[in-house]
Amino acid sequence: MPTPNPKVIVFDTFGTVVDWRSSLIADLTTYGEKRGVTADWTALIDAWRASYHPSMDRVRKGELPWTKLDGLHRAALDRLVAQFGIKGLTEEDLVHINLGWHRLHAWPDSVPGLTRLKSKFIIGPLSNGNVSLLLNMAKFAGIPWDMIFGSDLFGHFKPDPETYLGVAKMMDLAPNQVMMAAAHNNDLANARRCGLLTAFFPRPGEYGPNQKRDYAAEQDWDVVAADIQDLATKLGV
Amino acid sequence: MPTPNPKVIVFDTFGTVVDWRSSLIADLTTYGEKRGVTADWTALIDAWRASYHPSMDRVRKGELPWTKLDGLHRAALDRLVAQFGIKGLTEEDLVHINLGWHRLHAWPDSVPGLTRLKSKFIIGPLSNGNVSLLLNMAKFAGIPWDMIFGSDLFGHFKPDPETYLGVAKMMDLAPNQVMMAAAHNNDLANARRCGLLTAFFPRPGEYGPNQKRDYAAEQDWDVVAADIQDLATKLGV
Repeated sequence: MPTPNPKVIVFDTFGTVVDWRSSLIADLTTYGEKRGVTADWTALIDAWRASYHPSMDRVRKGELPWTKLDGLHRAALDRLVAQFGIKGLTEEDLVHINLGWHRLHAWPDSVPGLTRLKSKFIIGPLSNGNVSLLLNMAKFAGIPWDMIFGSDLFGHFKPDPETYLGVAKMMDLAPNQVMMAAAHNNDLANARRCGLLTAFFPRPGEYGPNQKRDYAAEQDWDVVAADIQDLATKLGV
Repeated sequence: MPTPNPKVIVFDTFGTVVDWRSSLIADLTTYGEKRGVTADWTALIDAWRASYHPSMDRVRKGELPWTKLDGLHRAALDRLVAQFGIKGLTEEDLVHINLGWHRLHAWPDSVPGLTRLKSKFIIGPLSNGNVSLLLNMAKFAGIPWDMIFGSDLFGHFKPDPETYLGVAKMMDLAPNQVMMAAAHNNDLANARRCGLLTAFFPRPGEYGPNQKRDYAAEQDWDVVAADIQDLATKLGV
């Protein structure tokens, strides 16, 4: 099989490029200690992430008008703070905690692998995060994106086809000149249905002890790699 | 006066960051020789650029539906090739020539100055070019943007306020947390009217012998610099 040769490679971000769970646990634990607020931050973060798909689905089904992911995160946070009985958080605290999703650290291979890929391809996140979230995160974590394909550019969340096809349209490319890279088989299945090339690498630590899937490729993706460094190698960079 | 401290600096691109006229003259002269097509390429390019504002104004006034700048460039090119009586160009040639706007070289200070600014600020083009044009140009010329604020993200051309204010809204910032940098006083006047910070530096060679204005700052812009390197110095980078 010849090496796939996309013009643009877009990456899922949460879990695929950045380690959201460990980053948020460290960030909120430190912040809670500084503010003297006691909580089971790990449980809060896992519940927060569990609210991710249901809240986007409400937008996708038209039950909510278009809302940036920051806004969905905030509504879920307010609900969970009440549910967990966490006391003593001011509005300023809640703003800071919600922006924790802008302060995520990259997996160790992400920045060196992306730096290599950037020499040959256009690279960007194709994430459900909004542009401001993804761009603040890139500056925080040193991720060298060429362009930020935030969901607010399309007014749609993945897996709506407007996201995958929106990148191709914005770049004046055919779908098969765009490659979707993700640690999640379902994201790649949806991208392939739209005609994109696909690349998989596993992130077995994404959900910590709660990981249930995505230990291995479930289809014959165009590239299957160990991580982003290995993806660069397999794409001949 | 304290040093302005924006979060995001957006740059006009054609003329401000890249030398469109010299780049296109060199590019098309070489291409014409290779293809054996004779034409006064310099005159064509000057006429092409002169069509820029009138064609965008047709979109801004609603006489044309939203059209990417690439599309406006192509319509003007077709008209000018006929008007100049240039013979022997195929459709493939016209596509290549039109994409000449994606192959522009940066002024010598642009890449080193932007690289310095990127260490402290979020930087991007805020141009009438579309995302694909600006991103292909960035890869061609090595311009290290963090994000591409192409006009197609807003469905508006400058000086519509939707462009200047669109950056602030997309980044969840107040207008005065965004700085517009340009070699054109009128662009800055429009940005200031929207509440943005402003930075000017002249590009006296932009129009070659046809330059008529913008040799100096015409208002008390927040920063007046010699070029982008000097802008970085004046912003304390």
